[in-house]
Amino acid sequence: MTSVHSIDLNADLGEGFGRWRLTDDEQLLSVVTSANVACGFHAGDAVTMRRVCELAAARGVRIGAQVSYRDLAGFGRRAMDVPPDELAAEVAYQIGALEVFARAAGARVSYVKPHGALYNRVVRDEEQAGAVVEGVLLADAALPVLGLPGSRLLELAGKAGLPTVTEAFADRAYTGEATLVPRGLAGAVITDPAAVLERSVRLARSGTVLSHGGEVIGVRARSLCLHGDTPGAVELARRVRARLAAAGVRVEAFA
Amino acid sequence: MTSVHSIDLNADLGEGFGRWRLTDDEQLLSVVTSANVACGFHAGDAVTMRRVCELAAARGVRIGAQVSYRDLAGFGRRAMDVPPDELAAEVAYQIGALEVFARAAGARVSYVKPHGALYNRVVRDEEQAGAVVEGVLLADAALPVLGLPGSRLLELAGKAGLPTVTEAFADRAYTGEATLVPRGLAGAVITDPAAVLERSVRLARSGTVLSHGGEVIGVRARSLCLHGDTPGAVELARRVRARLAAAGVRVEAFA
Amino acid sequence: MTSVHSIDLNADLGEGFGRWRLTDDEQLLSVVTSANVACGFHAGDAVTMRRVCELAAARGVRIGAQVSYRDLAGFGRRAMDVPPDELAAEVAYQIGALEVFARAAGARVSYVKPHGALYNRVVRDEEQAGAVVEGVLLADAALPVLGLPGSRLLELAGKAGLPTVTEAFADRAYTGEATLVPRGLAGAVITDPAAVLERSVRLARSGTVLSHGGEVIGVRARSLCLHGDTPGAVELARRVRARLAAAGVRVEAFA
Amino acid sequence: MTSVHSIDLNADLGEGFGRWRLTDDEQLLSVVTSANVACGFHAGDAVTMRRVCELAAARGVRIGAQVSYRDLAGFGRRAMDVPPDELAAEVAYQIGALEVFARAAGARVSYVKPHGALYNRVVRDEEQAGAVVEGVLLADAALPVLGLPGSRLLELAGKAGLPTVTEAFADRAYTGEATLVPRGLAGAVITDPAAVLERSVRLARSGTVLSHGGEVIGVRARSLCLHGDTPGAVELARRVRARLAAAGVRVEAFA
Repeated sequence: MTSVHSIDLNADLGEGFGRWRLTDDEQLLSVVTSANVACGFHAGDAVTMRRVCELAAARGVRIGAQVSYRDLAGFGRRAMDVPPDELAAEVAYQIGALEVFARAAGARVSYVKPHGALYNRVVRDEEQAGAVVEGVLLADAALPVLGLPGSRLLELAGKAGLPTVTEAFADRAYTGEATLVPRGLAGAVITDPAAVLERSVRLARSGTVLSHGGEVIGVRARSLCLHGDTPGAVELARRVRARLAAAGVRVEAFA
Repeated sequence: MTSVHSIDLNADLGEGFGRWRLTDDEQLLSVVTSANVACGFHAGDAVTMRRVCELAAARGVRIGAQVSYRDLAGFGRRAMDVPPDELAAEVAYQIGALEVFARAAGARVSYVKPHGALYNRVVRDEEQAGAVVEGVLLADAALPVLGLPGSRLLELAGKAGLPTVTEAFADRAYTGEATLVPRGLAGAVITDPAAVLERSVRLARSGTVLSHGGEVIGVRARSLCLHGDTPGAVELARRVRARLAAAGVRVEAFA
Repeated sequence: MTSVHSIDLNADLGEGFGRWRLTDDEQLLSVVTSANVACGFHAGDAVTMRRVCELAAARGVRIGAQVSYRDLAGFGRRAMDVPPDELAAEVAYQIGALEVFARAAGARVSYVKPHGALYNRVVRDEEQAGAVVEGVLLADAALPVLGLPGSRLLELAGKAGLPTVTEAFADRAYTGEATLVPRGLAGAVITDPAAVLERSVRLARSGTVLSHGGEVIGVRARSLCLHGDTPGAVELARRVRARLAAAGVRVEAFA
Repeated sequence: MTSVHSIDLNADLGEGFGRWRLTDDEQLLSVVTSANVACGFHAGDAVTMRRVCELAAARGVRIGAQVSYRDLAGFGRRAMDVPPDELAAEVAYQIGALEVFARAAGARVSYVKPHGALYNRVVRDEEQAGAVVEGVLLADAALPVLGLPGSRLLELAGKAGLPTVTEAFADRAYTGEATLVPRGLAGAVITDPAAVLERSVRLARSGTVLSHGGEVIGVRARSLCLHGDTPGAVELARRVRARLAAAGVRVEAFA
């Protein structure tokens, strides 16, 4: 009997704003199965949101709300002590804004993923993790939350009855405790394409990754996060998808 | 046989932003039957939007999306040459963001009313009026549009199959052609409370108003717009409602 | 021989934005000797900045730049992990913007005071305190910095050769270590006007305050911070100034 | 006797915002003699403004304030009915903010040029042209204004005693009346590099250009505006400069 492996591929899309472009949305949408669409708080104007939703729906790519702190100047990468009632309402606001474009394209917002500094903050911050969960519940009590395995966010989302989806990063180093080596430390980001490809397959087939120290560690992940905002990133994403297919892994959106 | 008159009362609500407050939302919600809720582009942070929707739903007040140009610094009062694709998407974005809070409160966004400079612009501007209609259609093809009788906005909304609702202003002077005397001209705003009360009743009972020049002119209006952002405004709104009731006019949201 | 006591009175001004008003700038300018003018990042549009500078200059009130995180939605009250190079440049930007209006009014920006969450952060945060100092140095290497005695900000400003000015709060409780009792704790804010008046005089005449626990503690302060954004605040500020004068304290801007 | 021709080359710089980049500032600064630096209203964060000023000062490139409507979402390309007092104050605000970084780099803001929709508006709009002039006067009563020959802006700036500098566009078609053929019309933008080079030399040497209709028309211009935000633009700018030099035109900042 053959076990069948499947994995979702997600990436951040629509991260321009007005005159400025960042991600190659069309190309990325030919690779990923889930699109984390910026909702206007760290990036993502309304025209872009509409267009990305139309493209994603046309290609059967799942649409997710990439919610963020309100911080265009900092691209949502600066941690902010936002009071929980504000954060909850702002998360709901962003989901609702995106939902209009998803529906108009014949689809729905199918999951929520925090962006940047908020993503990192809710790994451990009980209050903000709870606020994000409250915001998701305000919008839709059955909306899956995508995040880091073991994070407070997924723990609280699960307790609140929301479906949770774990993700891993083929281009980030892991510690022996299966947490990410912080950016800024040496070796935190894996730049060798061959290594990224190999790690992608290992994560998808065996749910493991080689840690920074060389140990085999388990990383539960129903989705792999790909990056699209650096030169060569789209090409690498394409190769990851091809390699996964070649290794017998079915690339498909999470259920 | 007695003819029965009924009128809707609408006002702008939730027009604070963050630390700043403008409208006395709680008091206004005890007077009006339709609440034009600011959606974040000229005013209205997410926490305020949520609270106003909860208060409105609890009191049975209808929730409308008060959509605007993106202009916090100018409170949406500065006309902008926004290209139609941007304007349409921004209108839809705002409606979607508000819908989250309306639904969470057990209600729905039940109509759309443009704010400030956009309201004035779409009286005559074909392109922007069409963009607002497109934005409403993106969000919900059955959403009523509230505006000035005879405006391009209502004309195009009607052609697109959207329900249209006309409104009048008891505290604004009308020309002999049933258009508003522009603010800035002498006598444009009627400040005598007794006159406002009398005009409210006349508008609701006979669909007429005395023009600036003293003629009786017809003004179709299913809703009266009250103001809530000036000293004494809430008290005057309360008196308008009481006077209408005393005159046998049923105050109720439009169907 | 009589010792002569003198004290500066500072308050936040110009904290509206566009359509929204917060502080009663005209009234406050008849009380204070130093005006902390909002520079557009947490509050303060350009028209307001210009008007406040004109009023302040006409009354001989010193103009200071009240610099903040870029956060209109949160009124600068949410701590942000802004990288030091961004924070330094943003501080300089705000000072420069205000300087235009100060000069046009025949005055100069005469000091810098951080606002809200940034004020609190630089009490202990070495990196951000250093960034604020760098921002001030970019603008003017002789510009005094107003802050909390014992703060990292004043320490680093002093090391960098900038004049430093300490301030105290007559309406805030102090611990036995001369730090402020955090807002949110019981008794943190002193609301009894009589107590505020008495503490003002004690701070100005003897440089001491009664701590939360009842001990007499020393608080070096060349300036008292008054508040102007609550009902009755302007009236209380006026009474503080009158009481100081009656107690023989000279109310004047710091040298 | 040889007549000596000289021309200034200006381009828009620093038009990124936060995470987003647009112009290749380093490369452009090796070509132009005047840098129109974005000041934060349509583009240009504080870090970028600082860096561009440092680079420009180091290379002896003149720094100008590229002032705009407050419109990040629209990149300043949407005409706005900003009341003149607001526009004047916002222009001054931007100049002041840039001046901090120019001074810190050992230079000064040496001229002002409106951006985008504001640039086009003040060609004919008396009120807004006057507001820009008032804003410049608030900042510095001797600051040159760069704009279109024959524009209301330059006319009013001249009347107010401000130095004025005219500019021309080698890559834009001109009508027989020496105005620009509006973008959007066929042939409005000249894309053939050879034609741009030839027109540059003609403009610099003879102060003429071939109109859309083929006539030789006079265009007074002390500066040529180059573009840097399209692929190949920097390379073309470099070639323009080289061709001018080869034709005996001295490329230097206006006096």
